[in-house]
Amino acid sequence: MSNDELNKLLEAVANHEISVNDANGKLAGHETSSLGFANVDLDRTRRTGYPETIYCSGKTKEQILKIAQSIFSKESRVLCTRIDHDKAGYIQEFFQESTFYDNANCLVIGSKPAIDTKSYIAIVTAGTSDIPVAEEAAITAETFGNDVKRVYDVGVAGIHRLFAKLDIIQGAKVVVVIAGMEGALTSVVGGLVNKPVIAVPTSIGYGSNFNGLSALLTMLNSCSEGITVVNIDNGFGAGYSASVINHL
Amino acid sequence: MSNDELNKLLEAVANHEISVNDANGKLAGHETSSLGFANVDLDRTRRTGYPETIYCSGKTKEQILKIAQSIFSKESRVLCTRIDHDKAGYIQEFFQESTFYDNANCLVIGSKPAIDTKSYIAIVTAGTSDIPVAEEAAITAETFGNDVKRVYDVGVAGIHRLFAKLDIIQGAKVVVVIAGMEGALTSVVGGLVNKPVIAVPTSIGYGSNFNGLSALLTMLNSCSEGITVVNIDNGFGAGYSASVINHL
Amino acid sequence: MSNDELNKLLEAVANHEISVNDANGKLAGHETSSLGFANVDLDRTRRTGYPETIYCSGKTKEQILKIAQSIFSKESRVLCTRIDHDKAGYIQEFFQESTFYDNANCLVIGSKPAIDTKSYIAIVTAGTSDIPVAEEAAITAETFGNDVKRVYDVGVAGIHRLFAKLDIIQGAKVVVVIAGMEGALTSVVGGLVNKPVIAVPTSIGYGSNFNGLSALLTMLNSCSEGITVVNIDNGFGAGYSASVINHL
Amino acid sequence: MSNDELNKLLEAVANHEISVNDANGKLAGHETSSLGFANVDLDRTRRTGYPETIYCSGKTKEQILKIAQSIFSKESRVLCTRIDHDKAGYIQEFFQESTFYDNANCLVIGSKPAIDTKSYIAIVTAGTSDIPVAEEAAITAETFGNDVKRVYDVGVAGIHRLFAKLDIIQGAKVVVVIAGMEGALTSVVGGLVNKPVIAVPTSIGYGSNFNGLSALLTMLNSCSEGITVVNIDNGFGAGYSASVINHL
Amino acid sequence: MSNDELNKLLEAVANHEISVNDANGKLAGHETSSLGFANVDLDRTRRTGYPETIYCSGKTKEQILKIAQSIFSKESRVLCTRIDHDKAGYIQEFFQESTFYDNANCLVIGSKPAIDTKSYIAIVTAGTSDIPVAEEAAITAETFGNDVKRVYDVGVAGIHRLFAKLDIIQGAKVVVVIAGMEGALTSVVGGLVNKPVIAVPTSIGYGSNFNGLSALLTMLNSCSEGITVVNIDNGFGAGYSASVINHL
Amino acid sequence: MSNDELNKLLEAVANHEISVNDANGKLAGHETSSLGFANVDLDRTRRTGYPETIYCSGKTKEQILKIAQSIFSKESRVLCTRIDHDKAGYIQEFFQESTFYDNANCLVIGSKPAIDTKSYIAIVTAGTSDIPVAEEAAITAETFGNDVKRVYDVGVAGIHRLFAKLDIIQGAKVVVVIAGMEGALTSVVGGLVNKPVIAVPTSIGYGSNFNGLSALLTMLNSCSEGITVVNIDNGFGAGYSASVINHL
Amino acid sequence: MSNDELNKLLEAVANHEISVNDANGKLAGHETSSLGFANVDLDRTRRTGYPETIYCSGKTKEQILKIAQSIFSKESRVLCTRIDHDKAGYIQEFFQESTFYDNANCLVIGSKPAIDTKSYIAIVTAGTSDIPVAEEAAITAETFGNDVKRVYDVGVAGIHRLFAKLDIIQGAKVVVVIAGMEGALTSVVGGLVNKPVIAVPTSIGYGSNFNGLSALLTMLNSCSEGITVVNIDNGFGAGYSASVINHL
Amino acid sequence: MSNDELNKLLEAVANHEISVNDANGKLAGHETSSLGFANVDLDRTRRTGYPETIYCSGKTKEQILKIAQSIFSKESRVLCTRIDHDKAGYIQEFFQESTFYDNANCLVIGSKPAIDTKSYIAIVTAGTSDIPVAEEAAITAETFGNDVKRVYDVGVAGIHRLFAKLDIIQGAKVVVVIAGMEGALTSVVGGLVNKPVIAVPTSIGYGSNFNGLSALLTMLNSCSEGITVVNIDNGFGAGYSASVINHL
Repeated sequence: MSNDELNKLLEAVANHEISVNDANGKLAGHETSSLGFANVDLDRTRRTGYPETIYCSGKTKEQILKIAQSIFSKESRVLCTRIDHDKAGYIQEFFQESTFYDNANCLVIGSKPAIDTKSYIAIVTAGTSDIPVAEEAAITAETFGNDVKRVYDVGVAGIHRLFAKLDIIQGAKVVVVIAGMEGALTSVVGGLVNKPVIAVPTSIGYGSNFNGLSALLTMLNSCSEGITVVNIDNGFGAGYSASVINHL
Repeated sequence: MSNDELNKLLEAVANHEISVNDANGKLAGHETSSLGFANVDLDRTRRTGYPETIYCSGKTKEQILKIAQSIFSKESRVLCTRIDHDKAGYIQEFFQESTFYDNANCLVIGSKPAIDTKSYIAIVTAGTSDIPVAEEAAITAETFGNDVKRVYDVGVAGIHRLFAKLDIIQGAKVVVVIAGMEGALTSVVGGLVNKPVIAVPTSIGYGSNFNGLSALLTMLNSCSEGITVVNIDNGFGAGYSASVINHL
Repeated sequence: MSNDELNKLLEAVANHEISVNDANGKLAGHETSSLGFANVDLDRTRRTGYPETIYCSGKTKEQILKIAQSIFSKESRVLCTRIDHDKAGYIQEFFQESTFYDNANCLVIGSKPAIDTKSYIAIVTAGTSDIPVAEEAAITAETFGNDVKRVYDVGVAGIHRLFAKLDIIQGAKVVVVIAGMEGALTSVVGGLVNKPVIAVPTSIGYGSNFNGLSALLTMLNSCSEGITVVNIDNGFGAGYSASVINHL
Repeated sequence: MSNDELNKLLEAVANHEISVNDANGKLAGHETSSLGFANVDLDRTRRTGYPETIYCSGKTKEQILKIAQSIFSKESRVLCTRIDHDKAGYIQEFFQESTFYDNANCLVIGSKPAIDTKSYIAIVTAGTSDIPVAEEAAITAETFGNDVKRVYDVGVAGIHRLFAKLDIIQGAKVVVVIAGMEGALTSVVGGLVNKPVIAVPTSIGYGSNFNGLSALLTMLNSCSEGITVVNIDNGFGAGYSASVINHL
Repeated sequence: MSNDELNKLLEAVANHEISVNDANGKLAGHETSSLGFANVDLDRTRRTGYPETIYCSGKTKEQILKIAQSIFSKESRVLCTRIDHDKAGYIQEFFQESTFYDNANCLVIGSKPAIDTKSYIAIVTAGTSDIPVAEEAAITAETFGNDVKRVYDVGVAGIHRLFAKLDIIQGAKVVVVIAGMEGALTSVVGGLVNKPVIAVPTSIGYGSNFNGLSALLTMLNSCSEGITVVNIDNGFGAGYSASVINHL
Repeated sequence: MSNDELNKLLEAVANHEISVNDANGKLAGHETSSLGFANVDLDRTRRTGYPETIYCSGKTKEQILKIAQSIFSKESRVLCTRIDHDKAGYIQEFFQESTFYDNANCLVIGSKPAIDTKSYIAIVTAGTSDIPVAEEAAITAETFGNDVKRVYDVGVAGIHRLFAKLDIIQGAKVVVVIAGMEGALTSVVGGLVNKPVIAVPTSIGYGSNFNGLSALLTMLNSCSEGITVVNIDNGFGAGYSASVINHL
Repeated sequence: MSNDELNKLLEAVANHEISVNDANGKLAGHETSSLGFANVDLDRTRRTGYPETIYCSGKTKEQILKIAQSIFSKESRVLCTRIDHDKAGYIQEFFQESTFYDNANCLVIGSKPAIDTKSYIAIVTAGTSDIPVAEEAAITAETFGNDVKRVYDVGVAGIHRLFAKLDIIQGAKVVVVIAGMEGALTSVVGGLVNKPVIAVPTSIGYGSNFNGLSALLTMLNSCSEGITVVNIDNGFGAGYSASVINHL
Repeated sequence: MSNDELNKLLEAVANHEISVNDANGKLAGHETSSLGFANVDLDRTRRTGYPETIYCSGKTKEQILKIAQSIFSKESRVLCTRIDHDKAGYIQEFFQESTFYDNANCLVIGSKPAIDTKSYIAIVTAGTSDIPVAEEAAITAETFGNDVKRVYDVGVAGIHRLFAKLDIIQGAKVVVVIAGMEGALTSVVGGLVNKPVIAVPTSIGYGSNFNGLSALLTMLNSCSEGITVVNIDNGFGAGYSASVINHL
């Protein structure tokens, strides 16, 4: 809230144009649902455009359920990431409609949204093993109303596979490139498109790959322009950012 | 070029609808100016929307000049980054119009472009020492036709300074957040806006900052969503990506 | 023992004002209980104000039992940290009164102490997953006679959650801030209080979090002042130091 | 500001007990002096108990001067750290009273404060080469009104040197231990005192010391209790935190 | 494809000397078998001299089967690396002839090739524990038609063991040296042969070996000449490169 | 073999004072027992004073057995390190006399040797959890004929425990100090003895201990003199080196 | 020397078919020129096919001169690497014929050799800044009698620049790829050639490039096959290995 | 001081067999010379067998002088390490007899000691560039009365150079091996001698040598036995430890 807005709000209070309670709501009033172990951020849609997503790793199924119920009371759907088959099964029993995406480790509570943009997001992987991270990105983006086109296994060891799909990639409004090992695909794609490229390093590889460090450094140091990077294996983060850009 | 396009082009050749020379130009024909020590990528504007920028660190002033002349022969302006005062002075004598931006270490050859978008880019820094990186981002974005609003020195040690400028930040189409030390500003901004946030870690700090590693890891691991990251001190990369997004 | 005290003690021996045995006890006499595999430091309460705590990781249940019995022979309670359910159950059969704190992995042998200070310690976490580390800190502090107030899940992605609890935090004599991922909460809290802040990085996160390194570096490099840091996941260390400060 | 306080303030506005302007000041009104390149945090004393300190590394002497003048307009003294002889000389010409501490690289503008606590801070170093960091801590603490006792060059290679000064160390309300190389002094001191110990790793050493990493890890992993750690070479941070604790 | 070749091809199309379809095949026509989750690179033999190898780690047995069938439809044998006993057993049921190499974790589908070179590859290990990596290299090389001589457990702790086998090593056309721990064997061999040496660091060791980092750095920094290095535990890469060199 | 010795040997051959076979034995004749998967170094006792020890990690029980039999055919006892209970049981059935040391993970085949030196080795640990590494060192030294005195759990958190045992430590000919966490004990001991100190970092600890890196760096950077270091958890290496020194 | 050869030599001595002196020469007789500060390896040509190269970094010009004179007494040319302009000038005065290669920091004493192979080595760089490393590789290879073709500045940001030169690269017997930043060029080239590829990471870049670590990891983890790697900036090592392979 | 000795001393005091002053001297009486910035440890010779050495890096010439005078008042010679030419010249004017060792950066105040042992120390380097570290070790050992034999530039790239000097190395009582780059020489020497080997990694090298890390890891992970390691470039530490062992 800027100084100007603040001034106006306070004047409205002074002039009894707005009640103290309502002003309080406007000022501090970012809504929160306190569950003891969690303060669910029910105000997030208003603030950032998206409801809170539940990162399920390290949470018990009971904690996930309570947080999901709290969010679902205000939102038409809830995205749960990094959730395994067992926890998802437990949660699904409490909701009328939900879908578990096995290879993305994602659970979506509520109905699938309609696609609300004309443009699409291209999600590109270097190899077959990068697909789980790609699916996390894809499900995230689809849950937030985006049209997603998948282009999988087009790494630079056989670069003609990439060129064969180039028109799909170049037609997207934003491109997500997902690669492990040395992650070189990102730089090649970056040099061929005029749209934002979001790079996701994966922990696929061995030896001096150091659990994704190799691909991460490659992407951060890319000689191509227009590339930004998210955390290792962070498909959700890439899908989220791609959705924000695709909705601009 | 997709298989379909390729088929059509080859048929056109077979039908003499297009000359061999022209087809060659369309196929391989990404234009290059070979200077011996450099293959200038004169085709880049067509491919990625932007001409090649000259990264001047580690190049001699003579090399920079020749590359700049090669690009300027096709483009209306050339951006040179990481260029010091002496090299810039040498280059400027060979061009009619050019501007050296001292605190950004940038040289722009040619006239300043008009702003060609209605939306603007907000560039935010945590501290005073982050300003050179911020200016590199700002000059880059302005050279590519963007409107830039600067919000400097609003780090979280005095978080009210950030809130006072929040309306500027929230009004932008894309936000660049630049911070050294522990880089916490990024996460706070990320939780307050519904636009893409590009984070730039800087090497400002000492001790276990490890030349920007601390801020880099902070930004990659942010608990806030919608944040993507570029290399340490890479103001140019952030300005470039912000421009791509701002022009969507 | 200073030179002056030493002189006085030796004069007292020379003057037969104190027996050789007693002098020996005063000089070398830091009491130790030697168990073969362990030299239990029974003198620690006199020296540092607190009895020895048993760090149970890597010790057998039999070793823990013998050390606990040795300490309990001189102290009214014993704190065992990093102890799992099975080992705790084994130990509890040998003592009349004891409590196992499941989510803190702590066992307290003996009765709960009364709160012996007027001020309190605030223990703040960024997320739900940080709670086990926070509980280790809380149980430690409570076992040493402190009043603890818990403020959980107020990370900066929804910073209004923090502001809603700010009066609890600002009212404490010492604040413990516990965060994983990028740990940015520490810097924000550090800029808002005038009391010592002890930061605990946790290993919560993934990818380039590198098992807590990200949060550790953030906290060490904080742009806010008045912050000191303990080891990754070291809830005990934070609770201990907070207790020392709270008792000043 | 808590919800309760907010409610009361808004009611006071509604009841015209307080003007809109004054309420605005109380709400957003963390005072800031905007210098373009810096937003000086003039509200910090009220919030954290201490005015903003100027970290001079990477700032020009003109920037430092303007920030110093802005703070000095509200505070009775200003601390500048990491300032060299030349910059300090430039600044000193603009103020009536100031002192430059050569081996601490600190400049204090304004008069020396009286000691305002009965207890004192002990600042202990392992070696002679750690003294500059120790002096930064000492000048910081003294500028904030503390009594400081220095105990220098008592590293564990000759541990009797430490024991000879033990009564000074044990008599302090808070102990700052500063060590490079392997930093073992911290653990020994930690085992002998019942007061908070703040450890400062220094970059003194060579080879696998890795610019202070060795001492930093030692201190974070100390087997002694009651130790918290600040950044490598961060004498200011240690002096600041020690002052906060000493004033409790 | 060079500009000249391109010109000629296009002229041939224009002159109807070659059909559009055929030209397309020559231009883009790197053959690909798209399986949805994988784009099998069926063109690789023509391009690099070797068919695509299946790296099985992180792929399901069903995925491996489909890729293997796709490649086997065009090639006389398929090499599967990093495949365990169970997956291999599943695959073997679908092919008439195949061999599983237990200590190499390799499966070869199809018949064993004849040795097609006169020279041989020497594969040398420092210890017994390095043998699995060595066998991966050996099976790879043998599958590609090479004669392989194994020299195992000749590390420098008993350097006479190496000298006793020196004539086998010096007689090879290319030498693969495989070592864990400190990897010193590479430098000694490098100083005694006049043939290319390919070094493979293994993750054998403990403590500051850091999963092969120690041996990797040793090999990269070798004071001997003529040594090049592949990734930690990358027996396949070494066998492949050795085969390329042996076939020159 | 020096040039002089070589000349003399060759002259003896020329003069038929020694047979070709015997000369061959003297020259190349470092005896080796080739088992296919291993080249057992049967010459090592003559060369380094000690028979080859079997490092069992990563070897099958059958491999260990064959190597042990090969060595035992020439030596009166064989030391197997890093061997678990099951493998040891399998091996023990094939030898008349053998002892398995459970907490050292060592198996000694053959009879216990008499102590063959007057001086003794002191093995000192900081904590109870360091004992397994200490026992590996102790059994190694005892198997090589040394008298060993154990001083366990005397870490610096209670430094009086160390002083109480100082005469045992100072009376040794060589001191092995074993510590995890921050490893500070090494520096304190190093400052109090005039004998060689061998330091063994252990992987005991958590968080930023990084599996022993913290203690390793501490020991390498010790401000005390006369300290040398072996690999993390390398009790065998320390026991071996201590034995070499104790036998001087 | 193998056992068989040894036997034969000794029998020849016993039969007086060869003198003791000559046998000694054959056995130990690797020739060495001892300069006090250096043992010049004059036997290296016989053993590895190449004379010793002088790595000049960290040696005085007088030391370099003496070593060069010692080698030149037996060889027709001497290669000095990492030598600056001043040292080279000093050395050149002492030899009749020599050439200093400025941008390679190489000095070649003696005449340029004739090209002695029919095949050639392709040396490829990603950028202009990689040229000094490339020139070190090229001069090394040329000094050892190879034909070298340079392909500079064809990085993947403008991948058509690479394709335009592909026939030169594919025609080589061995390819050296030199790249800094993220080093992605290596993987693309590796997927397009059927010859050995030697990758050289350079320290060109900034931020998280970490002095070449980024490119090094990229190359070690390449998804393309047939790639081996040398140390960061090690143009000499690449040129040497390429020469060994080119001469096969 | 042990409990027994303590008892006896206290009884002697009680029986007036010893004065309080004298007892005090015996108990606390580790002599110290306090210079304000330094507590010189004048008791060290009695405790560890050697006087305190002055590590001059980071000390002013005035500080070094005062410490040297303080030690020289009790000892017949003083060793100053890491001292440059200028500081050494300043110090030398204040003492009658002193020697500056240029390539060791050592200053010895007082006369050269006689050799006081029959055995000798062998100091071995891999290359010419390692000599400064070797000389620091040699001068240290000679200053403490040892006979030193130097064996320089015998690295494994030309391993016959090592074998030619093997009798010197094998004849020593303790061997110091000094190597940079990959440090493989240590393992080879370790497999050939039956005496303690002290390894010193040096920072000689480039690229992934990482300032000596490569050689350090090699030495810590050596497959040879009987090797212990000191810090990177720590010639003094190796010379000191070698002297302690040589005097056993």
